[in-house]
Amino acid sequence: MDRVVVVGGGAAGASAAARARRLEPRVEVVLVEASGMITHAPCAIPYAIAGIAVGGMVTYTADEFERERGIKVLLNARVTDIDVDKRVVYIDRGGMYERLAWGRLVIATGAAPSIPRIPGTDLKGVVTLRHPAYIDDIRRVLETASRVAIVGGSYLGIEMAEALLSIGKKVLLIEKENRPLPTALDSDMGEVVARELISRGVELHLGESLTEIRGRDRVENIVTDRESYSVDAVILATGVKPNTELALRAGIRLGSTGAIQVNEYMETSIDGVYAAGDVVEKFHRVLRKSVWIPLATTANKEGQVAGANSVRGRALKFPGVLGTTVTRFFNLYIARTGLSTREALENGLNVESRTVKARTKAHYFPGASEVYVKLIAEMPSGRIVGAQVVGWDHAVASYIDVVAAAIAGGMTIDDLFFLDMGYTPSTAPVWHPLIVATRVLSRGRF
Amino acid sequence: MDRVVVVGGGAAGASAAARARRLEPRVEVVLVEASGMITHAPCAIPYAIAGIAVGGMVTYTADEFERERGIKVLLNARVTDIDVDKRVVYIDRGGMYERLAWGRLVIATGAAPSIPRIPGTDLKGVVTLRHPAYIDDIRRVLETASRVAIVGGSYLGIEMAEALLSIGKKVLLIEKENRPLPTALDSDMGEVVARELISRGVELHLGESLTEIRGRDRVENIVTDRESYSVDAVILATGVKPNTELALRAGIRLGSTGAIQVNEYMETSIDGVYAAGDVVEKFHRVLRKSVWIPLATTANKEGQVAGANSVRGRALKFPGVLGTTVTRFFNLYIARTGLSTREALENGLNVESRTVKARTKAHYFPGASEVYVKLIAEMPSGRIVGAQVVGWDHAVASYIDVVAAAIAGGMTIDDLFFLDMGYTPSTAPVWHPLIVATRVLSRGRF
Repeated sequence: MDRVVVVGGGAAGASAAARARRLEPRVEVVLVEASGMITHAPCAIPYAIAGIAVGGMVTYTADEFERERGIKVLLNARVTDIDVDKRVVYIDRGGMYERLAWGRLVIATGAAPSIPRIPGTDLKGVVTLRHPAYIDDIRRVLETASRVAIVGGSYLGIEMAEALLSIGKKVLLIEKENRPLPTALDSDMGEVVARELISRGVELHLGESLTEIRGRDRVENIVTDRESYSVDAVILATGVKPNTELALRAGIRLGSTGAIQVNEYMETSIDGVYAAGDVVEKFHRVLRKSVWIPLATTANKEGQVAGANSVRGRALKFPGVLGTTVTRFFNLYIARTGLSTREALENGLNVESRTVKARTKAHYFPGASEVYVKLIAEMPSGRIVGAQVVGWDHAVASYIDVVAAAIAGGMTIDDLFFLDMGYTPSTAPVWHPLIVATRVLSRGRF
Repeated sequence: MDRVVVVGGGAAGASAAARARRLEPRVEVVLVEASGMITHAPCAIPYAIAGIAVGGMVTYTADEFERERGIKVLLNARVTDIDVDKRVVYIDRGGMYERLAWGRLVIATGAAPSIPRIPGTDLKGVVTLRHPAYIDDIRRVLETASRVAIVGGSYLGIEMAEALLSIGKKVLLIEKENRPLPTALDSDMGEVVARELISRGVELHLGESLTEIRGRDRVENIVTDRESYSVDAVILATGVKPNTELALRAGIRLGSTGAIQVNEYMETSIDGVYAAGDVVEKFHRVLRKSVWIPLATTANKEGQVAGANSVRGRALKFPGVLGTTVTRFFNLYIARTGLSTREALENGLNVESRTVKARTKAHYFPGASEVYVKLIAEMPSGRIVGAQVVGWDHAVASYIDVVAAAIAGGMTIDDLFFLDMGYTPSTAPVWHPLIVATRVLSRGRF
């Protein structure tokens, strides 16, 4: 049985299907997707709501996948069960039930919003964001709302705050930790983001937990452990969780993070069954242990690995992640990689960190903006283990990729100081902000 | 004798002096500079001429260096000779001669324009660019010129072309190779730059060598091996050469590149004598041999090493360079690191390269621009040895720093493909242009 069945047509699933078919054109590849679209881009949702995303929210249509790539795509087809002994999946296509046999299976069921268990989340006017298929529903809710609460100050919450402000809404942002982006940033860098949120008009409520959403027909109030606020709509950006139900029922092992456990070949605990994307846990290259960081970039690469290995055996290895993420709030770009100081300490690492404020161009060059760079190194080795960059220029997002490469390459503070980085007055000061950070962290050695 | 004397107050010399004094405040540090300014920024010259550089062209005044850092600065003081046996330097201060004894000496005499040996280079209206001290002279020449020839299509030539166009001059650019930036770029990437030069109005003459400059009182014509062009002024951007005369006379060894030979501690062949900056040759980390690539960023770091070691012995090592350079022509940013394909082949490496055209943001995000990425890897190891990036967004300059870190870390194509780079729709496509380049270079493995 040479058929590869891929469950889920998001980033990981579509990548896996495309890769498998490309490498082995004789193999039949079937992509089974529960919604009506594949290769959808959830990252685009805030920009679609803001009205600045142009064109479609999908990279490929099912038609293109079928015609150009020879992949059979089943849309609106929900896999209800996986039988790993008989090697079949059971599919519900709008009340029509089918079974489909596979030789290799790739599970790419992604993640879904994690809804807080409090009263009122099912009221009208309360929305969650995950799939572009529901964008029109969200727009409809927002049409009649002028005061909107966003619950959760993570990436999606921050990006939605920009989107809502830019279409003229009043925005309340509720975050239970004492800073925005609490899993990404340390407090000092979080404060820079908090100041920017406030300066752009966000009513920011840090350190408050949502306890209830109230309303008659529709949301009227949200209640936290401190206060009550009247709002017309609520966006729940309270995180996501892996869609593991299918895998769990099929007897596929989950890891300690709650996501599917895979090895570097994206193999699950069941022979012939691979998994990739937001539904699997990832090996963290600095922590040397499994974590769950759901990201489209990672999903794409894991999909490639799962797809290649499903037809070629152990052809590719996924080396793991560094926890690199980037977001923006208007023209403030926020990027991080590796470990934060807090994460490092929680994991028992002995680290030192320094935060510097620098400028993005030579001192005599106009148009420079400020950038905050935080660099974190393990001591006494000096090995770089993390960085955070916050600045008002989209170019600073790339600084974090330099540090990601430095971490992947095992570089120390000294190595990064001496890295031959490019310089021209319009793109960097002669002492690049990253180099300035290494100097400050070097304890006077440079 | 605890005195450290530093000859030359540019990037390397000023860094060395500052570092030595900072580490050993009891040591007397004297910085001897032939011109009237220190820490001057030659990279600023084109932007000063264009009128866009703001503020001074120096980072520190001599006064600040003396007062805030306790470094004695001698301005308009030309070192005429170094006696390495007696450990003294002889100084000409406008006809007043002095001798100054040293315990440690740092030579940071930099580089000077290399003037082609052809008739007419001494005519009025012919200028070279090296030191900000002469900016007013250049401005005066340009005031009465409407048609200006730039000879040399390297960084300075390209940057001067922008500067002259932006103040309304007609610009002819003469380059003897068949592409602009011939030492930096391969032909395919050079072509992108050539197209942009032409589209902005530069009269581009590639593959032509200057043979003569003609004129009565003042330049009237330039003659190449193909044609004669009437012009009102000529900017010679025909490269620079290390200022090694002093070192050579003192018996300090030069390397095969013609610049001063130093080891990783920035020690010259003479005990107690260090050298740093444009006057020294550099160890190329990919080629594993000495090269001469004069750059302010390198000079700063070498100065740090020379300064530290002059008072602390072998405290710091300079690991060498990767040949990373960045320039821009209006909004076209041009960056490169490591080896070009041509350089790799000339040095006997077996390499493969691919050039991809990609976009700088997610497909649905507005404001993306095109970027060309060329990636060069040694085969069959797959080790990345070079990259070139050309694109219409200042952020693409940072891509080259990511590759520089990848090269320094010994990464292969696979390592770079799997590097956890940041992604948000406004800063990159979900497949980053660098990752796209690795995919194309992977021969279908990804």
